[in-house]
Amino acid sequence: MNQTKVTLLGAGFIADIHLESYRRFIPEAEVVAIYTRKPEKAEAMAKKHHIAGWFADLDEAIEQSGCDVVDVCLPNFLHARAVTAAARAHKHVIIEKPLCMNLEEAGNMIDLCKANHCKLMYAEELCFAPKYERVRRVVNEGAVGKIFQLRQCEKHSGPHSDWFYNIEQSGGGAVMDMGCHGLGWFRWMLGPNVKPVSVYAHMASIYHSARTKAEDNSLIIVEFDTGAIGVAENSWAKQGGMDDRIEVYGTGGVVYADLFVGNSALTYSEKGYGYAMEKAGSTQGWSFTVFEEAFNQGYPHELKHFIECVREDKQPVVTGEDGRAVMELMLAAYESAGTGRRVPLPFRPSVKKPIDLWLGR
Amino acid sequence: MNQTKVTLLGAGFIADIHLESYRRFIPEAEVVAIYTRKPEKAEAMAKKHHIAGWFADLDEAIEQSGCDVVDVCLPNFLHARAVTAAARAHKHVIIEKPLCMNLEEAGNMIDLCKANHCKLMYAEELCFAPKYERVRRVVNEGAVGKIFQLRQCEKHSGPHSDWFYNIEQSGGGAVMDMGCHGLGWFRWMLGPNVKPVSVYAHMASIYHSARTKAEDNSLIIVEFDTGAIGVAENSWAKQGGMDDRIEVYGTGGVVYADLFVGNSALTYSEKGYGYAMEKAGSTQGWSFTVFEEAFNQGYPHELKHFIECVREDKQPVVTGEDGRAVMELMLAAYESAGTGRRVPLPFRPSVKKPIDLWLGR
Amino acid sequence: MNQTKVTLLGAGFIADIHLESYRRFIPEAEVVAIYTRKPEKAEAMAKKHHIAGWFADLDEAIEQSGCDVVDVCLPNFLHARAVTAAARAHKHVIIEKPLCMNLEEAGNMIDLCKANHCKLMYAEELCFAPKYERVRRVVNEGAVGKIFQLRQCEKHSGPHSDWFYNIEQSGGGAVMDMGCHGLGWFRWMLGPNVKPVSVYAHMASIYHSARTKAEDNSLIIVEFDTGAIGVAENSWAKQGGMDDRIEVYGTGGVVYADLFVGNSALTYSEKGYGYAMEKAGSTQGWSFTVFEEAFNQGYPHELKHFIECVREDKQPVVTGEDGRAVMELMLAAYESAGTGRRVPLPFRPSVKKPIDLWLGR
Amino acid sequence: MNQTKVTLLGAGFIADIHLESYRRFIPEAEVVAIYTRKPEKAEAMAKKHHIAGWFADLDEAIEQSGCDVVDVCLPNFLHARAVTAAARAHKHVIIEKPLCMNLEEAGNMIDLCKANHCKLMYAEELCFAPKYERVRRVVNEGAVGKIFQLRQCEKHSGPHSDWFYNIEQSGGGAVMDMGCHGLGWFRWMLGPNVKPVSVYAHMASIYHSARTKAEDNSLIIVEFDTGAIGVAENSWAKQGGMDDRIEVYGTGGVVYADLFVGNSALTYSEKGYGYAMEKAGSTQGWSFTVFEEAFNQGYPHELKHFIECVREDKQPVVTGEDGRAVMELMLAAYESAGTGRRVPLPFRPSVKKPIDLWLGR
Repeated sequence: MNQTKVTLLGAGFIADIHLESYRRFIPEAEVVAIYTRKPEKAEAMAKKHHIAGWFADLDEAIEQSGCDVVDVCLPNFLHARAVTAAARAHKHVIIEKPLCMNLEEAGNMIDLCKANHCKLMYAEELCFAPKYERVRRVVNEGAVGKIFQLRQCEKHSGPHSDWFYNIEQSGGGAVMDMGCHGLGWFRWMLGPNVKPVSVYAHMASIYHSARTKAEDNSLIIVEFDTGAIGVAENSWAKQGGMDDRIEVYGTGGVVYADLFVGNSALTYSEKGYGYAMEKAGSTQGWSFTVFEEAFNQGYPHELKHFIECVREDKQPVVTGEDGRAVMELMLAAYESAGTGRRVPLPFRPSVKKPIDLWLGR
Repeated sequence: MNQTKVTLLGAGFIADIHLESYRRFIPEAEVVAIYTRKPEKAEAMAKKHHIAGWFADLDEAIEQSGCDVVDVCLPNFLHARAVTAAARAHKHVIIEKPLCMNLEEAGNMIDLCKANHCKLMYAEELCFAPKYERVRRVVNEGAVGKIFQLRQCEKHSGPHSDWFYNIEQSGGGAVMDMGCHGLGWFRWMLGPNVKPVSVYAHMASIYHSARTKAEDNSLIIVEFDTGAIGVAENSWAKQGGMDDRIEVYGTGGVVYADLFVGNSALTYSEKGYGYAMEKAGSTQGWSFTVFEEAFNQGYPHELKHFIECVREDKQPVVTGEDGRAVMELMLAAYESAGTGRRVPLPFRPSVKKPIDLWLGR
Repeated sequence: MNQTKVTLLGAGFIADIHLESYRRFIPEAEVVAIYTRKPEKAEAMAKKHHIAGWFADLDEAIEQSGCDVVDVCLPNFLHARAVTAAARAHKHVIIEKPLCMNLEEAGNMIDLCKANHCKLMYAEELCFAPKYERVRRVVNEGAVGKIFQLRQCEKHSGPHSDWFYNIEQSGGGAVMDMGCHGLGWFRWMLGPNVKPVSVYAHMASIYHSARTKAEDNSLIIVEFDTGAIGVAENSWAKQGGMDDRIEVYGTGGVVYADLFVGNSALTYSEKGYGYAMEKAGSTQGWSFTVFEEAFNQGYPHELKHFIECVREDKQPVVTGEDGRAVMELMLAAYESAGTGRRVPLPFRPSVKKPIDLWLGR
Repeated sequence: MNQTKVTLLGAGFIADIHLESYRRFIPEAEVVAIYTRKPEKAEAMAKKHHIAGWFADLDEAIEQSGCDVVDVCLPNFLHARAVTAAARAHKHVIIEKPLCMNLEEAGNMIDLCKANHCKLMYAEELCFAPKYERVRRVVNEGAVGKIFQLRQCEKHSGPHSDWFYNIEQSGGGAVMDMGCHGLGWFRWMLGPNVKPVSVYAHMASIYHSARTKAEDNSLIIVEFDTGAIGVAENSWAKQGGMDDRIEVYGTGGVVYADLFVGNSALTYSEKGYGYAMEKAGSTQGWSFTVFEEAFNQGYPHELKHFIECVREDKQPVVTGEDGRAVMELMLAAYESAGTGRRVPLPFRPSVKKPIDLWLGR
């Protein structure tokens, strides 16, 4: 088999998950190189994952690694820069969420990829998480009638990496980090013919106010033209490990699903043990012991789909356009949180970063 | 990549699961041929799964397909016959549980494979089910101290295929079909240095007495030389879909895990939908909607391990010897259910099939 | 023991629950009479519950029954009328939620009771539901640090009685019926020193639009002066039986509790059985079988507290003032749903009924 | 109301639960006196619970307190002594489980109560626990067809009081303490016409071997004449708080119910809080926060029934004869654990205490 060559940009939490996914589940891809800013870290990562190449220079990593695909797992503020470089080098792009920092960047990225005949594949893994996809399929079979309300939650006590807390690098807090999941998933569940018409949001700084100006707790309501609403609750202020849940309410039924607690073994340990789940804290006493975390969140399914799109020249099910649409919803959410008003769509402000719309008030 | 060639014998429920596992998760293997007794069924299966070869003759399938590995997914009474043919043709063997019909067959299979330098790989998927393996790993880290009790349940309303109900072909009912899982898993959890010392069992014919002489409800207690006990509850008489659960009790904690209900989305559907889980029955009203059933039961992990053992000439973690040890425990269980007595081990009766020890009384 | 005499006004679903609560759990009270508009229904109810007196005239029921307390379980539009009559007759009043139809009525009821030295006890049972009260107490012990978000849900497929669907009699739909619970519970959890500062709400007519002009699905966000928010999701459009849940998010932890599904036995029944839970529909297949429904919702605890307040001349923990404060929040919610804007508090519109603020737009 | 007068013997864990139950839920009874061996403890308990009389002499407590009913909450070895004294004084008797230490005592107690026209009411609270009673009622409605298997578990890390660990005072360990619940509940579920035919048991000393000779982990299988089996798992060796669960398997369905974890709020607390549930240990991290523990275990329902039987001269639903039948099953269990054999019933050995049949081997 002729493997598709991938260069991975980044060496953080999400990069590790992508690397595990490629190695275990996607034999048709080969990660040929890693880029990270600090040379010694790039080398260590490459050695750990048996990857031949490592680079401390972004452009060299893209141009000299011989890759077909660039997988961008960098801090948000570097997304546009990385995609631009990849597209100019005629590489297909997998881009971790959120797409970028603002709509102008989004437009440029999309246009440039199009002009260079590169696929811009937007890595929203909730469109691939197998439990949630199972839910989507039974809903599409008509199991719950017509959807009138969706709920998505992703909550934990905050990311490890520093850049998330630097709003110049992240563009925002829990919404930029997790809110994008819910907003993307609402669109995915409702399909391309259902349009959002307004956004209302509440944001607050609860738990990390000493560390960041960004919101660490958020609630977003998106109203769609069918009358359905999506409620996204995302937080960096929730103790006790990751919570990732959805609820689908239809006129003929309801579905509840839960990726972490609801998939776990339930353990009581007097002495504790190594690891329970993402951000779980102590493992003494009761804990929820997850398994196959990457798989259950859909990363292998996602990346396999993207590699297949490259190999067979197919249209990805989530693209830069989806990332841009989510960006618009996030901007509207920050605007709403800042003004206290429901924001009608379309909403296309010209700001450097989304959180300015909240902090600016 | 040079793929390992597999010929799959059988075309039932479990054959389908193996084929899905190979196709989606094990690119290093290629299923080159299928055998099933009825030519038209073999052809249909081969076409459905894009498999080049199909055979209605067992020996031809093994000898003429060009395979490296024979994967036996046949009714129990054909296991020894198939393994013998495979070993004589110098093929490695993956054998679905239970190993065979009696200890004599087991010994012959093991010896013949050894003599022909073929691996005999015993497909006990609970040793690979990722949630249960996660539990085993935290237990091995010391999370719950020293194990003093294990519980395993697998319960549903009975298999679909007719041969399970014909004791000449199955050798027994719920114990031969599912009890083997618990007995194998107890040994796996406790490790090779812990020996079973006695077996007590209760069996009954509850729900399928019109269709089979076999037991369709069972409870087995295995006592080990550490004082730990394993309790296996297995049933073909439980309504409402599959239940597969474990409990691990240690001096310093406890773990509960659940492969089906505990991994599912929870759905209420007025109209119903296509499929909830194995043997679930109606999907109207509340149902437990499972996802990635094959993966969550560990079939891909299991078969990937076996293919790796062949490719890298490694010792499989579960072998014919394990299958034989489980067979001895099952024989002791039938003896106990027949006599009402606890049966000390070793127990090596000479019977044609296990259930004779119960029905013979 | 000298029993406190209660006259119960009403003969619907909630009246039955009150009667069960008095009979089983509150020996210090005696229900001496029932009032309902249709004489034959009043008589039947009185006989069923072994109650000596029955009346088809409201004023006679209050004045001639010899009661100390009037317990008002009538449709919303009759609340003010009944309380007025009770207060004039110098009877203490237990008033089912919501307090009444508008703020003017609320003020009059409160003033009149005060003038006549009658207690006006507002029956918000979530302040008494023992699981939720247990949660409140551990939260007050500091178990989760400082509250920053509360969530309350009450969802089912809609009430049985016709008057709920007649907005002239109900004043509104799911919000008037259930939203009051969440709004009252937020205030109860946060305590008297925390003040609401704004309300945002979304309402829709989803499932019962042929039967009523009222909203049957709602989402309300209340912002408090501590920065905490309360999210109330209440619905008459959710299939599969009652759902009643709370979530408490604090800076040092989180609590989830669930009164129906989370307290139930889990049953699979091929043939079905009589009753699973409130509004559950079919009991065939899987169902959640609740027990002690009235007790688990706190009705006995609530009514016992009110009777004790009467007997010992204590101040009830929930009063007409609380009911009025909830009414103000509900009015703000309807206003917000009507205008699409966040409504700052205080908000004291002069309308005949809350839903006018939504329907009027 | 003329209250029925109760003298309570004992001042331990269960005495407290009875006192709470009387006080909150059974106004038709008045606890007039408490007996406990140490005068200062008796006085303290009486003061705490506002009970007028307290005694440090058993006979005086019974004879001089003016009671109608004696409620025996003493260590097992004092049961026969207390019941004898009560019957001779013509008092009705509520006797906590297990009935006594052996069959001879049981026979004497039953005979003496009969001769003195005293009711001997056997306090098996699982016959009253409201969730389990709800299950029994839906099963009796036919919800699960014909029962073929029952499972009962009660597991925690061991009682607090010393006498439980002294086999001369307790007569045995986890079986005498908890096994009696399962054995009593099996009989209750199956009804008076279904007879047990054999018992098999496994017992072990796992966790408390330094403190007691008694078994602290047990598994009992009772076979009934319908072919149904009951599986009782009871343990003092399970960490993480109380577990109390039942499973009912029938030919047409299944029911699972759970009194502690399955009724709890789920709490994550960084700092911890006062109390989660019986024997729960630390409340830091995740914990299951139960509520209304006494009520949910059925103590108020049980004691209310017994008081009603006294007041209305009714036959209690569980009597000394039931306690004796459970004693016979426990004796057979110890015999089976001692001999490794299934014990046929009837089994009426003459031993001083049940555990002798296990330890004597």
